[in-house]
Amino acid sequence: MPIEILLLEQHTSQRYNLELENVLNKVMTMGGLVEKQVGDGVRALLEANSELGELVSTADYRVNLLEVEIDEECTQILARRQPAASDLRLVVTIIKTITDLERIGDEAEKIGRFAVSLATAKSLPVYYTDLRHLGDHVTSMLHDALDAFARMDVDAAIATAAKDLQIDKEFESLSRLLITHMMEDPRQVKNVIKVNWCARSLERIGDHAKNVCEYVIYMVKGKNVRHTSLDQMQKLST
Amino acid sequence: MPIEILLLEQHTSQRYNLELENVLNKVMTMGGLVEKQVGDGVRALLEANSELGELVSTADYRVNLLEVEIDEECTQILARRQPAASDLRLVVTIIKTITDLERIGDEAEKIGRFAVSLATAKSLPVYYTDLRHLGDHVTSMLHDALDAFARMDVDAAIATAAKDLQIDKEFESLSRLLITHMMEDPRQVKNVIKVNWCARSLERIGDHAKNVCEYVIYMVKGKNVRHTSLDQMQKLST
Repeated sequence: MPIEILLLEQHTSQRYNLELENVLNKVMTMGGLVEKQVGDGVRALLEANSELGELVSTADYRVNLLEVEIDEECTQILARRQPAASDLRLVVTIIKTITDLERIGDEAEKIGRFAVSLATAKSLPVYYTDLRHLGDHVTSMLHDALDAFARMDVDAAIATAAKDLQIDKEFESLSRLLITHMMEDPRQVKNVIKVNWCARSLERIGDHAKNVCEYVIYMVKGKNVRHTSLDQMQKLST
Repeated sequence: MPIEILLLEQHTSQRYNLELENVLNKVMTMGGLVEKQVGDGVRALLEANSELGELVSTADYRVNLLEVEIDEECTQILARRQPAASDLRLVVTIIKTITDLERIGDEAEKIGRFAVSLATAKSLPVYYTDLRHLGDHVTSMLHDALDAFARMDVDAAIATAAKDLQIDKEFESLSRLLITHMMEDPRQVKNVIKVNWCARSLERIGDHAKNVCEYVIYMVKGKNVRHTSLDQMQKLST
């Protein structure tokens, strides 16, 4: 994913510029990794592919390593460059974003683990359609959030953040469906609960993607929109 | 909770000192609030007290307001004071800590909501003993984590972080118990699932408390211990 941080001003120090670009590149790499982890996790789950699930459940360390690395570089930039204004907001934005990316990685890891243990379940039940829809919407929301971050695009961030509501609704509806299934066929409780945890993880990934969108808005507009309504957020649209 | 940040050096600027103390006081207030929210949430659940549950589920906005306020003050300190060394670590630690405190608040809010909807369930089932134990351990872990933060006590932070393992085990065991219940009495699935979400929220609160402990270690030792094993962490003990 190419970095087109429109707001990144040219600094008198080329080296400083390089440092910021370098750390941003790593955030993009980390974003790409978690996006792949989530996509693979969902695919492993839907295709009952235990090999892929195993891969997802063991690859999270790469995301974790990047988190620690980026975190350290950000603190060093703060200490040595003492950034101000939009540079400072950028560094704070990165520190926050990688926390959410790391947690998305954690959720993907969980989905991978459940995919392994669910792979032996004989049939692909009807609710897999709903799960597939939820998975599709969450992975596309995550992709859009990372894209909004890469382009520091406020409008895209606002539009993407708004998708979280739909995902919450889909999760609630799938949860109700799963409860009905469990009541009708109690022998399936153990497996269906696992599907429910996966759905929950997807819903949480939507929350984290929304957080990333909010950081983009903070970065560009200098306004903290955490805990503000969608209406208020949309007023910041260009 | 009195603030005894041992590492807080006297600055030439009294005003700068006051700013740091002021923001630390707010973190303590925020910590006190989420601690109360979690305690009340668990109590509402166990005592089937829908009034208290309602209170918990609507009081989270105070935690959110504090998060935004503290976050803003930290960014201002970074911009105006350009802190270095342990002061910089302190500000970064605060920025990270309040994110976890805010999420603990979110989990408490969820527990409050479930407490309301579970309050009408007629009997207090046997698994409430396990849930009570889990609730007790998580609230005490959270208390210890906030205490370690207030005193910037590395040893206490390491000891508290270690408790997360026990909490994870208790959650797993409770989850298995709940699954058995659902299989035996499918009519109870709807309610038991809610209890399972509450247990999950408690387990997540344990994770967040552990994060706070890790930030304390980072603050004092200057070493990022995220994603390192307990053994390695314990080597940092004094």
